[in-house]
Amino acid sequence: MAMAELLNSHGCVVEHSEQHRDLGVGCYFQRVEFKYGTMRKTGEQLEASLHEVCGRLGLEFQLSWGTRPKRLCIFVSKYDHVLWEILLRHKAGELECDIPLIVSNHEDLRPIADAFGIRFEVFKITKDTKRAQEDLEIALCRELDVDIVVLARYMQIMSDEFCDAFTHKCINIHHSFLPAFIGSKPYHRAFDRGVKLIGATAHYATANLDEGPIIEQDVERVSHRDSVDDLLRKGRGVERRTLMVALRAHLEDRIIVYGNKTVVFAD
Amino acid sequence: MAMAELLNSHGCVVEHSEQHRDLGVGCYFQRVEFKYGTMRKTGEQLEASLHEVCGRLGLEFQLSWGTRPKRLCIFVSKYDHVLWEILLRHKAGELECDIPLIVSNHEDLRPIADAFGIRFEVFKITKDTKRAQEDLEIALCRELDVDIVVLARYMQIMSDEFCDAFTHKCINIHHSFLPAFIGSKPYHRAFDRGVKLIGATAHYATANLDEGPIIEQDVERVSHRDSVDDLLRKGRGVERRTLMVALRAHLEDRIIVYGNKTVVFAD
Amino acid sequence: MAMAELLNSHGCVVEHSEQHRDLGVGCYFQRVEFKYGTMRKTGEQLEASLHEVCGRLGLEFQLSWGTRPKRLCIFVSKYDHVLWEILLRHKAGELECDIPLIVSNHEDLRPIADAFGIRFEVFKITKDTKRAQEDLEIALCRELDVDIVVLARYMQIMSDEFCDAFTHKCINIHHSFLPAFIGSKPYHRAFDRGVKLIGATAHYATANLDEGPIIEQDVERVSHRDSVDDLLRKGRGVERRTLMVALRAHLEDRIIVYGNKTVVFAD
Amino acid sequence: MAMAELLNSHGCVVEHSEQHRDLGVGCYFQRVEFKYGTMRKTGEQLEASLHEVCGRLGLEFQLSWGTRPKRLCIFVSKYDHVLWEILLRHKAGELECDIPLIVSNHEDLRPIADAFGIRFEVFKITKDTKRAQEDLEIALCRELDVDIVVLARYMQIMSDEFCDAFTHKCINIHHSFLPAFIGSKPYHRAFDRGVKLIGATAHYATANLDEGPIIEQDVERVSHRDSVDDLLRKGRGVERRTLMVALRAHLEDRIIVYGNKTVVFAD
Repeated sequence: MAMAELLNSHGCVVEHSEQHRDLGVGCYFQRVEFKYGTMRKTGEQLEASLHEVCGRLGLEFQLSWGTRPKRLCIFVSKYDHVLWEILLRHKAGELECDIPLIVSNHEDLRPIADAFGIRFEVFKITKDTKRAQEDLEIALCRELDVDIVVLARYMQIMSDEFCDAFTHKCINIHHSFLPAFIGSKPYHRAFDRGVKLIGATAHYATANLDEGPIIEQDVERVSHRDSVDDLLRKGRGVERRTLMVALRAHLEDRIIVYGNKTVVFAD
Repeated sequence: MAMAELLNSHGCVVEHSEQHRDLGVGCYFQRVEFKYGTMRKTGEQLEASLHEVCGRLGLEFQLSWGTRPKRLCIFVSKYDHVLWEILLRHKAGELECDIPLIVSNHEDLRPIADAFGIRFEVFKITKDTKRAQEDLEIALCRELDVDIVVLARYMQIMSDEFCDAFTHKCINIHHSFLPAFIGSKPYHRAFDRGVKLIGATAHYATANLDEGPIIEQDVERVSHRDSVDDLLRKGRGVERRTLMVALRAHLEDRIIVYGNKTVVFAD
Repeated sequence: MAMAELLNSHGCVVEHSEQHRDLGVGCYFQRVEFKYGTMRKTGEQLEASLHEVCGRLGLEFQLSWGTRPKRLCIFVSKYDHVLWEILLRHKAGELECDIPLIVSNHEDLRPIADAFGIRFEVFKITKDTKRAQEDLEIALCRELDVDIVVLARYMQIMSDEFCDAFTHKCINIHHSFLPAFIGSKPYHRAFDRGVKLIGATAHYATANLDEGPIIEQDVERVSHRDSVDDLLRKGRGVERRTLMVALRAHLEDRIIVYGNKTVVFAD
Repeated sequence: MAMAELLNSHGCVVEHSEQHRDLGVGCYFQRVEFKYGTMRKTGEQLEASLHEVCGRLGLEFQLSWGTRPKRLCIFVSKYDHVLWEILLRHKAGELECDIPLIVSNHEDLRPIADAFGIRFEVFKITKDTKRAQEDLEIALCRELDVDIVVLARYMQIMSDEFCDAFTHKCINIHHSFLPAFIGSKPYHRAFDRGVKLIGATAHYATANLDEGPIIEQDVERVSHRDSVDDLLRKGRGVERRTLMVALRAHLEDRIIVYGNKTVVFAD
């Protein structure tokens, strides 16, 4: 709570604050949202003070001024439903970010990018070129100051190196209720298993496929009447809304990752 | 649809009927609920006619007159929440069945059985006595004309022989969203994995643990604020309502099992 | 069940069938989905037979050959989220219909119609011109063989005459959980009331505002942290998915209206 | 945030803290949960300090030491499902409170109270005796130090005087999704209206029937197949879980009422 004192003493006004203590792992988390129009010090001074106080208390901190929208790069393949969802919600003002780039391994979705006036770059992937292409993707993202990558049903397994380049900055939407149906074709396997609910999971991509920290999950009811195609259709709906919740949380700096878990502060 | 003709021609009145065709496996299912107060033939005659028609069409059939409530045996260990749910809903008239017996491996829940005037038998289980005790349990269930067994958080793995004795007549409530967290301590593992929803699954018990045909599943939202104890608490709620939906479906003859899946006709 | 006999005797194959009896009002409903590739009679002969049998039994019937997709006209004003949802889902093959026309009282959404190559007609509405403009809208819909109208957040109250022209063929999406918050500004009123869930209702438009037969309803959780803008945002999500469920049911001939209620057969 | 400074300076350790600012009404709310085992002052001193600081800042505060469980009185009539839910969850350790009293206008549920060893008092209500009986109920509650009253489907409209005696300390569970179906027989009216979801609302009782501050709402899907009895049955499930969420929030001091709304801090 020293944060509050510190912010107050600098003339900032705390708007929202939430804390959480994980007694199991002995961790403490706090998120403070504050207005700084009345701040009596410079940003550098505040940052220095935070550095000093947190150092003394053994805390890590991250300071985001909110002046510059995060910059989002969307990776897609041939499925367009998640891409449309992101672009339309962004256009509607629901996602505070800029979208300087869409990356794909196919040409198919270029017209959508064009319609929104967003740069669309194709990096064709073969087994042999994968790592090299990824490096070019990473380089382009860096060049464009990309802060957050979304794998919008990109359908490629990212290398460890790629995941490392975007640690806790790359959100994947997996089309199952993890840890059920890790890996490929989850809807087909859900159909074969005869489940009564299907789900989707938004998580940070890590070197271990589908095992990164989970941000959000949601489900939809299915029945014996649903074919695999029905599961795919219903799944598209769940995928879209699950990713949106996760992406909004990330863009609003409401997520803290610790170990393989997330604290997602309420919106 | 020959069923309808047949029933009509015997003077029965169809109340509800639902059909389903699984094009993948090439199966056809039909459930017909009819009134037979105006039936112009005997029950034996109707059954014979059904036998003849279904034989000709290569169909299997099951005829339930609804005159005799199904007889339910509840297996419990030390957890009482599912037991209470069954007993109270039964008392409220929500479950059409008789409950002649509660079986347990511990004495703990006897007072509840006593309060409802239900016979309570303890079969203590050790690694060595397990199969023998199960045979006694099976024998007692048969003696009491038990039609359906519910494993109400019984916490014992049933032998293949037990499962075979109650094929598609033994409902287990597993405390996870299957196929996630098969096996023991699913809430602890859900906590460790950092999931954002927990679930429960009601399924028919088979020789393969937690892999029997799924009848019903449901979920509940959890967050980083929830401890394992919170998951256990929220889970008890989901377990109760998931089992109730499944049990009602079974008692009302609304479930058909085929392969490892269920058709659950709408209530 | 005479339907089944009749269809069988004409060489048709019943795929799905569901019946419902409303004991309260003494009504009986049946929906039969059948393949007629092997039909041994003409369509006219089948229709004549249905006419004869239903006449004898005092039943009404409706026969849909499924050869011609229904023709949908979307009415919009300035909000685009429901329009996008319909157009994108249609493009994804999730809605079996043709969309020959979009009607609006404003020019704003013309570019979207253009992007999908759909005719867009503006009928400006003032208090004085309303009825006359509606008549032109009705005439154009008839000219284009429109079967079903969706008021996709059209924001105009339709006259009795308009509703009568599209009895049970005009679906409105109301942005509240009816019968709560009938009328205008439901999200603002929901905010003022401090509800913990907001909802949306898809219903057939009738002369009585927001009181037509309900097809589908859904809700979304809100909290004290949500502003009116948050309710509007969350509401857009619920509106979109509620309308989609209703529209699919209508397009697949799964709805029967009786009195002021709907039977919605399972998909 | 001065609260945190103050608590720290007294040697307390803040465990959880959450703040909320309602920009519309210009209100600010904070809830701080802290451990005081290491407190270097007396409770009186802390309270005095809080009084001083809050007075200076124009804030109201409420201090709860958590040493004494709240004391709950349950009002019932003839329906037992909510009563059972409370008593069983209390027994399972899910509700931190003592239950010194159950009040009813009928004898019917006395055996349940007896089974749990809880005092059961009947106050028969007629139009003429109502106010007088209520005064006796209030007096008994005061005598027994009752902090919180739950109207567990009590089926009586409480007088203004009763509501005033328990301002924000009397939770009612209404069997509809408010503000839909205010008043009596909501399930029957929901059935007549043909809704596709039914709901329940837990709110603080006020002089205006069913218009008090809403604490929690939940819904359950229904269909044309559901009779009024089915709605009643499904409704009992929703009522039980809606009230539990609300009651837990109240018992854990997680609710702040302002105007006719509630802030419900996350559990």
